[in-house]
Amino acid sequence: MSAVTAFPETPVAAFNLDAWSRVRLAQVEQALGRWVTAEAPQGLDHGAPAALVEAMRYAVLDGGKRLRPLLVLATHEAVCDPADTGAAHAAMRAACAVELIHAYSLVHDDMPCMDNDVLRRGKPTVHVQFGEASALLAGDALQALAFELLTPLDGSVPEATQARLCGLLARAAGSAGMAGGQAIDLASVGLPLTERQLREMHELKTGALLQGSVMMGARCGTPGARVLEALESYGSAIGLAFQVVDDILDVTADSATLGKTAGKDASNDKPTYVSLMGLPASQAYARRLLDQALTALDRSGLPHTQALRALADMVVNRVC
Amino acid sequence: MSAVTAFPETPVAAFNLDAWSRVRLAQVEQALGRWVTAEAPQGLDHGAPAALVEAMRYAVLDGGKRLRPLLVLATHEAVCDPADTGAAHAAMRAACAVELIHAYSLVHDDMPCMDNDVLRRGKPTVHVQFGEASALLAGDALQALAFELLTPLDGSVPEATQARLCGLLARAAGSAGMAGGQAIDLASVGLPLTERQLREMHELKTGALLQGSVMMGARCGTPGARVLEALESYGSAIGLAFQVVDDILDVTADSATLGKTAGKDASNDKPTYVSLMGLPASQAYARRLLDQALTALDRSGLPHTQALRALADMVVNRVC
Repeated sequence: MSAVTAFPETPVAAFNLDAWSRVRLAQVEQALGRWVTAEAPQGLDHGAPAALVEAMRYAVLDGGKRLRPLLVLATHEAVCDPADTGAAHAAMRAACAVELIHAYSLVHDDMPCMDNDVLRRGKPTVHVQFGEASALLAGDALQALAFELLTPLDGSVPEATQARLCGLLARAAGSAGMAGGQAIDLASVGLPLTERQLREMHELKTGALLQGSVMMGARCGTPGARVLEALESYGSAIGLAFQVVDDILDVTADSATLGKTAGKDASNDKPTYVSLMGLPASQAYARRLLDQALTALDRSGLPHTQALRALADMVVNRVC
Repeated sequence: MSAVTAFPETPVAAFNLDAWSRVRLAQVEQALGRWVTAEAPQGLDHGAPAALVEAMRYAVLDGGKRLRPLLVLATHEAVCDPADTGAAHAAMRAACAVELIHAYSLVHDDMPCMDNDVLRRGKPTVHVQFGEASALLAGDALQALAFELLTPLDGSVPEATQARLCGLLARAAGSAGMAGGQAIDLASVGLPLTERQLREMHELKTGALLQGSVMMGARCGTPGARVLEALESYGSAIGLAFQVVDDILDVTADSATLGKTAGKDASNDKPTYVSLMGLPASQAYARRLLDQALTALDRSGLPHTQALRALADMVVNRVC
């Protein structure tokens, strides 16, 4: 059997990730615009103050690659029956919730006491635009809003799903997840780390929320243990790959392509995969992680994993 | 019928709030000590970094009146069958979760870009002790941990209860709750507010989480609509009373009794009930709110509301 006919039905190349993403990104953008709002929530007399909501919307809307929401939606589509509109609604809420957590982490990360960044996606950062106190509160409110999105009062998401999604998101965002990884990052500037310590830091800082996105998409349905295990491996591999590639791009891409300052990690004396293993070994590691992610999807036995495959490929082969 | 025999069975004085509180506070303290920890959560390979957890524990343990946890537990006891150990376990998790939200709000509130306070409960504030970046992250991680506590993976809290508690807490903490109230507070320094605007600010800033504590305690069980409505009124009245009394104490108590700087609101040119209505009218308003709270409890028809009554009395008649 020739190589051409060995995979007759599922070449990654035949899947148009751009077209797939475009539709979902528009839906996510519209949903975020609708849910990050000053309108009074159901059951409350008054909504949020307009000035706070303005800072929250500024932090969330019209920006970013939206990788985490796409991972939620791609996993949901791999796991759930497309006719199950309830699961699709839960997945859209989960997609927006992880993006709110990601957005709040950027707002707080950019503040003067952390990275002190003044530009993000070509715009002044939230604290530059609205002041530090407002940035702090907007970040805090975005985290709470993520859990509001997961717990609609209108019965549109089953309570068991709400509970599972809240649990996954809280652990991905918290002290043994994203916030914990940021704390390790903060403490490790200028320190020599082993490869194991570097991996642990990134598993928490970036990996936990990327893997959490995958698992939240999965838990909009009720997949079995084999599928969950495989998706956990997939999420873990692309979570780590994302960071390895970030480190590679920091030395190989120019600032204009990257949309942020290239070479920043090295100049900040931050430990990176490239500083630890060198560039060629880092590139080989990223390719190995992509293989692991794709093998995990094979193992899942799920029939519709094209979007997940294409997203893994995009994470590793992106240029910015 | 004489005044002495008019209320033969239910005098507030016969209920020993101190003794009731002492037992519950010890349980809350022990539970917080166990749950704010660096141990790996179930299902995760690694726990939180020790330095972050140290800052989180510093912010949470051994301090504060724990009014919010006591409100959760008192409401749970008023609503639920004492033999229902599952509901009691959910209530203890809810009690700790609201305290984590309260603690994170104090950590962020004390930061230089907000109130810039260096002392809290007689100790250096978290950012003074651990640095601003660590304080920011510890607050963020405490908020996430609150939702982790509400979503245990061991089946000890029914998923429907988990979902309801997460929904209540997210809304109490978020942009139409506590964080929203802080944003209004921030924007209103030096501005003339009407009594309605001041009330709206406090309903969000302090009231939402106090009322949320009551409703979370209630939702550990499955009370009917009449009970829920009555407890909402009770929570709303004591939430507002708490703030009115805070404003009164700011001008009537000395700093030593208060444990914080007295007269601070006036010197910061913050609008208060006392600056708006004067001291006697503020005191009369606080007593009226206490009456409203107690009347709401009468309306609930619940038989065991002694702790809730005593807590309402304590909120209004406290001296610090």
